[in-house]
Amino acid sequence: MSDPSFAVDAHQAAVARELYAAVRDLPLISPHGHVDPRLLADDEPFGDPAQLLVVPDHYVTRMLLSQGIPPAKLGVPRRDGEPVETDGRTIWRLLAANWHLFRGTPSRLWLEQTFRTVFGIETRLRRETADEVYDAIAARLAEPEFRPRALFARFGIEVLATTESPTDDLAQHAKLEADGWGGPGGRVISTFRPDDVVDMDRPDWRSSVERMGSLAGLNVRTYTEYLEALQARREAFIAAGATSSDHGHPTARTLQLDKSDAARLFEKGLRGSVTPEEAEAFRANMLFEFAGMSIEDGLVMQLHPGAVRDHNRLLYERHGKDVGGDIPQATDYVHALGPLLEAYGMNPHLRLVLYTLDEDAFSRELAPLAGGYPAVFLGAPWWFLDTPDAMRRFREAVTDSAGFYNTAGFVDDTRAFCSIPVRHDVARRSDAAYLASLVVQNRLPLDEAAETMADLAYHLPRRVFRLDGDRA
Amino acid sequence: MSDPSFAVDAHQAAVARELYAAVRDLPLISPHGHVDPRLLADDEPFGDPAQLLVVPDHYVTRMLLSQGIPPAKLGVPRRDGEPVETDGRTIWRLLAANWHLFRGTPSRLWLEQTFRTVFGIETRLRRETADEVYDAIAARLAEPEFRPRALFARFGIEVLATTESPTDDLAQHAKLEADGWGGPGGRVISTFRPDDVVDMDRPDWRSSVERMGSLAGLNVRTYTEYLEALQARREAFIAAGATSSDHGHPTARTLQLDKSDAARLFEKGLRGSVTPEEAEAFRANMLFEFAGMSIEDGLVMQLHPGAVRDHNRLLYERHGKDVGGDIPQATDYVHALGPLLEAYGMNPHLRLVLYTLDEDAFSRELAPLAGGYPAVFLGAPWWFLDTPDAMRRFREAVTDSAGFYNTAGFVDDTRAFCSIPVRHDVARRSDAAYLASLVVQNRLPLDEAAETMADLAYHLPRRVFRLDGDRA
Amino acid sequence: MSDPSFAVDAHQAAVARELYAAVRDLPLISPHGHVDPRLLADDEPFGDPAQLLVVPDHYVTRMLLSQGIPPAKLGVPRRDGEPVETDGRTIWRLLAANWHLFRGTPSRLWLEQTFRTVFGIETRLRRETADEVYDAIAARLAEPEFRPRALFARFGIEVLATTESPTDDLAQHAKLEADGWGGPGGRVISTFRPDDVVDMDRPDWRSSVERMGSLAGLNVRTYTEYLEALQARREAFIAAGATSSDHGHPTARTLQLDKSDAARLFEKGLRGSVTPEEAEAFRANMLFEFAGMSIEDGLVMQLHPGAVRDHNRLLYERHGKDVGGDIPQATDYVHALGPLLEAYGMNPHLRLVLYTLDEDAFSRELAPLAGGYPAVFLGAPWWFLDTPDAMRRFREAVTDSAGFYNTAGFVDDTRAFCSIPVRHDVARRSDAAYLASLVVQNRLPLDEAAETMADLAYHLPRRVFRLDGDRA
Repeated sequence: MSDPSFAVDAHQAAVARELYAAVRDLPLISPHGHVDPRLLADDEPFGDPAQLLVVPDHYVTRMLLSQGIPPAKLGVPRRDGEPVETDGRTIWRLLAANWHLFRGTPSRLWLEQTFRTVFGIETRLRRETADEVYDAIAARLAEPEFRPRALFARFGIEVLATTESPTDDLAQHAKLEADGWGGPGGRVISTFRPDDVVDMDRPDWRSSVERMGSLAGLNVRTYTEYLEALQARREAFIAAGATSSDHGHPTARTLQLDKSDAARLFEKGLRGSVTPEEAEAFRANMLFEFAGMSIEDGLVMQLHPGAVRDHNRLLYERHGKDVGGDIPQATDYVHALGPLLEAYGMNPHLRLVLYTLDEDAFSRELAPLAGGYPAVFLGAPWWFLDTPDAMRRFREAVTDSAGFYNTAGFVDDTRAFCSIPVRHDVARRSDAAYLASLVVQNRLPLDEAAETMADLAYHLPRRVFRLDGDRA
Repeated sequence: MSDPSFAVDAHQAAVARELYAAVRDLPLISPHGHVDPRLLADDEPFGDPAQLLVVPDHYVTRMLLSQGIPPAKLGVPRRDGEPVETDGRTIWRLLAANWHLFRGTPSRLWLEQTFRTVFGIETRLRRETADEVYDAIAARLAEPEFRPRALFARFGIEVLATTESPTDDLAQHAKLEADGWGGPGGRVISTFRPDDVVDMDRPDWRSSVERMGSLAGLNVRTYTEYLEALQARREAFIAAGATSSDHGHPTARTLQLDKSDAARLFEKGLRGSVTPEEAEAFRANMLFEFAGMSIEDGLVMQLHPGAVRDHNRLLYERHGKDVGGDIPQATDYVHALGPLLEAYGMNPHLRLVLYTLDEDAFSRELAPLAGGYPAVFLGAPWWFLDTPDAMRRFREAVTDSAGFYNTAGFVDDTRAFCSIPVRHDVARRSDAAYLASLVVQNRLPLDEAAETMADLAYHLPRRVFRLDGDRA
Repeated sequence: MSDPSFAVDAHQAAVARELYAAVRDLPLISPHGHVDPRLLADDEPFGDPAQLLVVPDHYVTRMLLSQGIPPAKLGVPRRDGEPVETDGRTIWRLLAANWHLFRGTPSRLWLEQTFRTVFGIETRLRRETADEVYDAIAARLAEPEFRPRALFARFGIEVLATTESPTDDLAQHAKLEADGWGGPGGRVISTFRPDDVVDMDRPDWRSSVERMGSLAGLNVRTYTEYLEALQARREAFIAAGATSSDHGHPTARTLQLDKSDAARLFEKGLRGSVTPEEAEAFRANMLFEFAGMSIEDGLVMQLHPGAVRDHNRLLYERHGKDVGGDIPQATDYVHALGPLLEAYGMNPHLRLVLYTLDEDAFSRELAPLAGGYPAVFLGAPWWFLDTPDAMRRFREAVTDSAGFYNTAGFVDDTRAFCSIPVRHDVARRSDAAYLASLVVQNRLPLDEAAETMADLAYHLPRRVFRLDGDRA
């Protein structure tokens, strides 16, 4: 199967291919994702094909689970240490035997294109070809050209941001910098993600705050010390190349608490006695605080709200977090972001990139906010919406009020390193199809569509995420 | 007008027609609907064309009402017994004179295709041809080939599930079984729909509970006896061929009450003193209980939430329920189903088919739930969404996260017997158009699209609704 | 760039062009908008191109603000009287230099088509051509054919409704009537918009009520006198040609308060002591009251709910209302309108036209309400949704349940006089594209599509807004 153009109409598809061809070889900008920096710091060969492409991909294990295949049979580790399947070939055969489940899904698109473009395999995966595909990938993975740093170069990645907590000592990033790969302006940089020291609902919140303090050289007993520790860690992240922070809250709620009220909540948290409402208020207050810090230190602020974490409780109990048990919920932005935007929405130093799992907010709230506040940008369609059809709906719904230049370009947000070029490629093809539809309808001249295409693919993410060296 | 392909692009339409042609003659599986079983038990000739196609179709009478034509003029019976129009030809002329109101609606699609494919009439309906079309249909209806059982065979229906309350004695189904038409594995089976013995808000709840008890041979005075009666009636329904239950609640809320709390609520209900909040809690608790029963007895559980019943109060006062006065409301699934899914979502014996009137939940909640829990399947677009455009939006929105195999195939959900083949045909054409769009975009090979097409049209509904004899 | 057809497929585009060609020259019906009546009463030449096309257009200044260009640099007046840019050419150059921000937006579509079809300019706007385009427009504006009344005639406007408050003395409309342009059945009529005397949250509510009273010749101290004053002003508006009222509330909530409760609230309002909840209840009660008045005096009732006014507080503080700082919010109709519809939804004398900023309600609430109540019609996609893509989504989502004849035809709702023909043209092209898609799919014969096209473009708005002289 040749590459999809994401256009049904032949004329639109032809224009889309032309727009895409001009950007296909532009470097990849990956300003937000979850690749383990150790991968690139160590540059060890990857494991077997299943360990690389199935076990850690919760899109894949989730879909197989939905048809009754337990994650343990797919090699997903259990929290209780009970044994799970470890034979890569067995796992792979299970995937191949259930390949029809992925028809029409982005996982299928990403995996097939990965097989073809990363590993050079043209054989179609099915039950009968499982071993053939498995062996071919395994053979590639044994070659030096398939080590992480070699792939990084081959993929044409200009910059990759990983994501770490303030409780991380950034040792991997230090090693990368020592190797000439990391640090400010480097190829691999970090992102400041403080959720585990902000979210009092987490059982390990206190110990995380303590660990953050010790990394900052502070004994954190007060709210003021807590803020100081956060600022110190932000500086350490900036020194490790970070240009943005990231915030994964259940809601987008923001709130400016009196310093004394925030301090009282913080101390209640340390005593382990906050209610869920107080934890929410503290999170909301901290988004407000982080916006203030961003204005000071220039970190671009990303907000990823709206996931009900660990909705699938049994899956969480057996296998822990981030294995496919999260479900989106309806997400309000217009009221939730009110306090933050009233204070800082017009501030030229703030840059707030909004994501959503709730596409119902595209035209109603997100596009009007991005098209009305200098500080607000729209992040790429995220997670369940990171697909050709949802990307089309995104552009169709937000361009009216936000145009193209209040969007932030594509963000792959992935932990699946080998899928990075494929995901960017899908986004470029999707945007090309949308722009082509405007051209075909005589709503945008081809030359302007081509310029926009290059901006979306390369220039916008560099600029919005301050990867062009401009700290504004 | 020849049959629509639901594709604008000529290439897509060609592929869609090819995919459709291969399934057009597959038998019809109708696992959920509201046909009166008496129709097939008695096999009497139908009434006049208006009594068949206008009077009982609330899609049609609702639209005419919306432009000021009172239901009484269309023959819809009044609760107070006041006279209504009874002359079929007069009603039919009113329909024809207002035929333009149905442009672009599914009613027009269904009726035109019914005229053509069921009755063999090619004349376009309009004011001037009202009598010609009326007479042609009336002539057909007088022929023996147009009796219900003959049409059932001609329509190629393999199995049709009607819907009954636990207060129904299932006499019609007994007659059908005696005639070789009903019973387990038969052509006409029942569905267990307990809303009127669950919903304490209904004025006749108590008497319904009593009637259910007497059919179960029990004097229901306690919650325990109530549960026993429900279980007994479920067994009777299973004996009458039922493979599923159906639940039409205002919300999708579920709740596990302590047995003693549920018992207290139940007894309050018997005393006629529950608040709306308590009635809602009891409904939520019963969804939880029914899931447990389903795991025991194997009935597939269908949930149809989100209708505000009898929103049009005056219409209800004049003409009663189910005449077009219901309006959808925003419906939460992610929180509402939490308790049920925490307890049973991973249970391989539960099968929960979710429907919606709120398409905003397609990509945000429904697809992630179906794509993440083994128990959850997505029912076909329902009621206001049972249309070519909404079916396309359904596939475009849910396939990303749920694929095709967490959906349950088409369900006609109709009381309009003659529209059954047409509705299935529209669904098959819609799915063919969507699959063709994937083929044309090189996102799915034609052979896999064809296999998926057959699964959606026939194999999936048989399997999901346990009509293949597999009680898992 | 030639005119867009809003269809990607060539066949669909050809049918769309045919449908469009037949209505392109039909007169424009503008039953709701915000053109200043003084414009047509005085018939003075327009200001410079920037004063005409940039400064008052909050779609344009909002987008430029979103990329950091302060409204003061675009000539938007400040509340504190501080100086703002007044040089039209400087403002125009700023627009041209940032023209790329408008790619894909309706503003670009409207402005480009205005340049071409109103001013006859074929030069594409860009930084380099800013002066050329500016000078060409300025030259046109100096010609007598470009005075407002001449343009009104050239645009083919049959009737234009402006919008005034009951506190307006309607002097401009009196002048228009004296000139043979206004009054009942005239070319320019008014719309009764009572928000500022209804919304107790406004700081000037009391003084507005007073001013209304003095125009009505009443000293308004009681709720009864308040209602009398409103009725008197409605009569004055009807005498000035008004056929509709308009209500711009934060929500669609309606409520029937006891007369005595309403009176108590009103008196509390006069004392300046209502809570936000009481102000909301009073607004809800007044929607109910206005429906009753509409049934008496025949004014068509328009409801525009769902905007969070002045969300951008700093923008409001600097520049006041209606400069681009409003953001939509999720809007419930099904429960909010319940009380009003229970009382009056079946009343043949009420006509309630519903608008929305929340497209999520299209298929879930709005279409079922319009397709189920004689009183309810759906207004055209509004404000952020007044775009080719949103108009397509509107038709695709509402036609299933509401058909075409429960919609009200296009409403431009604009204060930008020169954009009126362009906006209607965009709507006609959009509807043509949607109807063509039905034709191409064999879902509607071409002759019926053509009749529907003419109804949407001309006959429906005349009829629904009672501009055909029929007060029903």
